[in-house]
Amino acid sequence: MRLTPAGELTRRITALQKLLQQKNVDGALIVDSSDMFYFAGTAHRAHLFIPAEGKPLLMVKRSFTRAQRESALEDIIPLVNVKDLTRMLNEYGYTNITALGLELDVLPAALYLLFQELFEGAQIVDISGLIRSVRMVKSSFELEVLRDAARLNYTLFSRIKDYLKEGITELELAGQLEMVYRLAGHSGRVKMRGFDQEVYYGHVLSGTNGAMPSCMESPTGGPGVSIAFPQGAGYKKISVNEPVMIDFVGVKDGYLADQTRVFCIGQLPDKLVRAHETALLIQEAVKQMAVPGALCEDIYRHAINMAVESGYGEYFMGCSEPVPFIGHGVGIELNEWPVLAAGFKTPLEKDMVIAVEPKFIFPEGAVGIENTFVVGEKGLETLTLFNETIIYLK
Amino acid sequence: MRLTPAGELTRRITALQKLLQQKNVDGALIVDSSDMFYFAGTAHRAHLFIPAEGKPLLMVKRSFTRAQRESALEDIIPLVNVKDLTRMLNEYGYTNITALGLELDVLPAALYLLFQELFEGAQIVDISGLIRSVRMVKSSFELEVLRDAARLNYTLFSRIKDYLKEGITELELAGQLEMVYRLAGHSGRVKMRGFDQEVYYGHVLSGTNGAMPSCMESPTGGPGVSIAFPQGAGYKKISVNEPVMIDFVGVKDGYLADQTRVFCIGQLPDKLVRAHETALLIQEAVKQMAVPGALCEDIYRHAINMAVESGYGEYFMGCSEPVPFIGHGVGIELNEWPVLAAGFKTPLEKDMVIAVEPKFIFPEGAVGIENTFVVGEKGLETLTLFNETIIYLK
Repeated sequence: MRLTPAGELTRRITALQKLLQQKNVDGALIVDSSDMFYFAGTAHRAHLFIPAEGKPLLMVKRSFTRAQRESALEDIIPLVNVKDLTRMLNEYGYTNITALGLELDVLPAALYLLFQELFEGAQIVDISGLIRSVRMVKSSFELEVLRDAARLNYTLFSRIKDYLKEGITELELAGQLEMVYRLAGHSGRVKMRGFDQEVYYGHVLSGTNGAMPSCMESPTGGPGVSIAFPQGAGYKKISVNEPVMIDFVGVKDGYLADQTRVFCIGQLPDKLVRAHETALLIQEAVKQMAVPGALCEDIYRHAINMAVESGYGEYFMGCSEPVPFIGHGVGIELNEWPVLAAGFKTPLEKDMVIAVEPKFIFPEGAVGIENTFVVGEKGLETLTLFNETIIYLK
Repeated sequence: MRLTPAGELTRRITALQKLLQQKNVDGALIVDSSDMFYFAGTAHRAHLFIPAEGKPLLMVKRSFTRAQRESALEDIIPLVNVKDLTRMLNEYGYTNITALGLELDVLPAALYLLFQELFEGAQIVDISGLIRSVRMVKSSFELEVLRDAARLNYTLFSRIKDYLKEGITELELAGQLEMVYRLAGHSGRVKMRGFDQEVYYGHVLSGTNGAMPSCMESPTGGPGVSIAFPQGAGYKKISVNEPVMIDFVGVKDGYLADQTRVFCIGQLPDKLVRAHETALLIQEAVKQMAVPGALCEDIYRHAINMAVESGYGEYFMGCSEPVPFIGHGVGIELNEWPVLAAGFKTPLEKDMVIAVEPKFIFPEGAVGIENTFVVGEKGLETLTLFNETIIYLK
């Protein structure tokens, strides 16, 4: 298994420390498993203290032995009871914490209140934005892992023709494709940030199901197989002459590649074909425009304008309940920064990784494209290679 | 798809209201998707206000149209911006909220702070315990759904003999079994309560991998395929004469059935065979003892004593990092109440549903049993039927 090298962890921690110093935060206490994997190189249950200056301390609840083997950090100790936390920090010389950084976007309130008590008198600062900023720009190590995730997706999309047949249900297709992913090394879980966001591999949706919005912040949703998890493939049988949109997320060594292709058994109406071509043109424009320094919201507006000019504006990024973005950061989680959305003024930087997904959602079905890209000097480089036109099967 | 009947929602809401009144809480604001599914019959993104007396109000962020179709509640309105929440409650006549109940165990701190601002001056009360108490005892409707989940598991366990062969990897076996689950209608996601608990179907572990603890609070853990999600099946090839423990969670219409069986190609050493028999004896004792009124911790202690008396005590419920329980509530989530653990003084009640999992984890592999049971007048009734001895394959 691929471990995160010590130098990589140091680079990430140093980047966060610089931001902590700028904000006058004495140290960050990290508990979220995605942030933990990023800064400590292990996803075991632990508390990671990163001081604004000095060496981080990883205090592990479970499994201590495994976290020790996986993490390249130097100081790793077991933590039996979270109430011992401040005492342990004191023993390591971290005594005067007057401003403590916490991941307030994901940290449960009960734990927040406990930390407030343990670090009595300390000001608590939300550092989730700082963490998300550091995680936005990928290192060459991360890009290498992301390329592996994209290769996993190539394997998946290459196999769709073997399973997609008239009359099978979306669920039958999804179940078999998920197996392809697993046998190729997909770890199963696709992570999203936030307590109210979750996904299972992605969406396999045919015809009218493509137009069904869900709880997920995504242009497509779909019925799912139960109201308890109302998204993704359902029991609808796949017919000829309707679009089958497959939006799947490959995961390799903790990094995600988000990709969508449209398949069809038979023929599609001209309107859907033209809308798909428009999506490809929008993608091309975004690829050119998305150079370092370009503002996310400018790219978003340009895409919206192109969609409106095409005449299909009202179907862009959703039908009855459209989503207010055309792309999103991708890395350890599916909803990283930056977001290509109105109000997101962040300028792009080299080596940010974003999924761009111009899609048109008609009541009769969804078309469009999604790829995961890395921002380069001259625009976007595609990580997720595969035929981008509508893929017709017999 | 199975919808939750109106009478069922009323029963659940009334049960919570009784507890809110006892604790002098004016109303509960529910946001967690599992609690939402339980009290509103929809898992879409929403805020559900349950007053201590009167009718609940469901305010839906996304998808409003679907939540309206799914939920049998009477008052369902769209909520575009969470900041409008108090105004909307006011319009519905809920004006004087001096004590507000929130799910502090799962609610992110940022949202907690926002609610504190919106409900200025109100005392905030943690109602996660009240909610978990209500959810502990299942209705006949819920038991019917749970029986369906158990049937899904019967299908799964019946098919293992078709896929388990010498030389395939744990991951290959897991990937194919997950497909069996999906084609039979498994929704994919297995829910757990809490920000630091997650699982993917369960654990397929052979030989020594059975002894590898993970971040998960479970007697087994396993390597997984990446350090980013360090549990479950790994790349180890399955050999003859070692135990293959399959601990899988079926999900049907939002309800879970948790079940473990041990398979073996060839023969197992006497020690493992005897330990498995001991696990069955412990299960039998627990089944008899777990009548309404019995205390969870007494059952736990009895199981521990039996394990110690068998001579295999040091391997009970984990090898290097054992877990401090022998069973746990099961319903919409895998870690519901009650817990059969020291310090858990709750008396059992009729129609509680618990998974009991006496397991012995030796360095060379894991044996033991797990079933999901419903508490009846005379003890536990098994929902998850399947051959309980070690299942030998050729």
